[in-house]
Amino acid sequence: MNAELSRLSLNQATIKRCDVARAVDGCARHGIPAIGLWREPVAEHGLARTRKLVADAGLRVSSLCRGGFLTVADPAGRRAALRDNRRAVDEAAELAAACLVLVVGGLPAGDRDLAGARARVVDALAELAGYAAERGVRLALEPMHPVFCADRGVLSTVEQALDWAEPFDAGVVGVVVDALHVWWDPRLDEQVARAAGRIASYQVCDWITPLPADVLLGRGLPGDGHVDLARLGRLVTAAGYAGDVEVEVFNADVWAADPDDVLREVVRRHVMLVRPSLGG
Amino acid sequence: MNAELSRLSLNQATIKRCDVARAVDGCARHGIPAIGLWREPVAEHGLARTRKLVADAGLRVSSLCRGGFLTVADPAGRRAALRDNRRAVDEAAELAAACLVLVVGGLPAGDRDLAGARARVVDALAELAGYAAERGVRLALEPMHPVFCADRGVLSTVEQALDWAEPFDAGVVGVVVDALHVWWDPRLDEQVARAAGRIASYQVCDWITPLPADVLLGRGLPGDGHVDLARLGRLVTAAGYAGDVEVEVFNADVWAADPDDVLREVVRRHVMLVRPSLGG
Repeated sequence: MNAELSRLSLNQATIKRCDVARAVDGCARHGIPAIGLWREPVAEHGLARTRKLVADAGLRVSSLCRGGFLTVADPAGRRAALRDNRRAVDEAAELAAACLVLVVGGLPAGDRDLAGARARVVDALAELAGYAAERGVRLALEPMHPVFCADRGVLSTVEQALDWAEPFDAGVVGVVVDALHVWWDPRLDEQVARAAGRIASYQVCDWITPLPADVLLGRGLPGDGHVDLARLGRLVTAAGYAGDVEVEVFNADVWAADPDDVLREVVRRHVMLVRPSLGG
Repeated sequence: MNAELSRLSLNQATIKRCDVARAVDGCARHGIPAIGLWREPVAEHGLARTRKLVADAGLRVSSLCRGGFLTVADPAGRRAALRDNRRAVDEAAELAAACLVLVVGGLPAGDRDLAGARARVVDALAELAGYAAERGVRLALEPMHPVFCADRGVLSTVEQALDWAEPFDAGVVGVVVDALHVWWDPRLDEQVARAAGRIASYQVCDWITPLPADVLLGRGLPGDGHVDLARLGRLVTAAGYAGDVEVEVFNADVWAADPDDVLREVVRRHVMLVRPSLGG
């Protein structure tokens, strides 16, 4: 095993065309010791089969994506969302994932009450945290770039994520630091420092310009954009984070490329740009 | 004069195809008592001629857009930027504009040092504030939505704008509250309250989804998107803002429409959605 890769994880969305089996095989062949899984491809492969596949390959599961979408206002929709999140907790437990990433959801259609939507997430978190604690699963609140506030995630900053996480044990509710979502934040330094003990996942990619027509796919490989990943890596490290570093890139060109070429590049960028910032 | 329109201003970019003469004429015919001007069309029409045109029409100039772009690192580029900003101050003085809007600029090409870019803006502001004070011009720092952090404006929140403005007299350095740029901010309520006396301009439009391919044009008319403008209007009013409210919409469909239809709609939305939130 290559020590330089000891903390590298591939979020499987980076090679979206690959199913779980091919993604796991790719990690194994490229010396990547951890993987971030998504619920849909896991369900396609089968939960128990995925667990066995990952274990047989000797991989850690750095995260399961994703629960959340907890802003729905109507009671039936809300019950359904909570039910689905409990299932996601069960799946994360089965996979021994280091955390279950929560993308909290945007404004319901036609609803302009941002404070209300945020309050509903906080309420739902209180309902889910107990269940997650029982199952030994760590929930990971993911602040999303404000460009996604209306339609994906009303949780907008690391500070806000920490405020929401604060009532809970850090082992039960942590936060995600995703370079794409947080790099612009004037309070980033102090809030990442405050996040000591709460960082459940550190994800890297890059903010590229011009943004593509579909802003959801506006992520570059580390080094292709404007983010000072070396600096962010040092902040996260100074806050005591010693877990896996997931490369998570949503990008039409990356998805169209040969997955082995992508994995080679993921490894290269990690060694060049990310690993040196992690200390140790 | 219609009292319901007494605080409405048209930012001329909303009817971008119109030159200054047509924009001023449109305001006069639709009962809009103020206009936000842009430097380029003003230069085309001539500065002194524009001043006379606006005065003859009895319009206030609620803002001049724009100075800024102060993140450049090389000394020659920096001198040129400062020179251009002094010219913009002169123009704002000549037009008796209520403020000169500053869009501070993004990261220089290939530069990932966000803290450094921000520091250069703060330094430049100190150089410009004295000149603005002499000319009786109020500089208005415009925090921009973080989607523009890399390429347009490294000033990302009202809080950060207030931090930068704080060393200066509130009459010399104020801040812009633009609904599009600030609506998502978890600290918005407290920071708009903190901005009492510093709000130099309040601009309205709406955040629409899906974003168009060119995110710069991702602005809807008030009411067409996700922003609770009534709530924001109440916050700004509670902070003591009693100036004009500019409608500033960058949108390809709006630009393609008949300007008179656009102005009718601007008036209608103001009366329906914005005016009731302004108290008084």
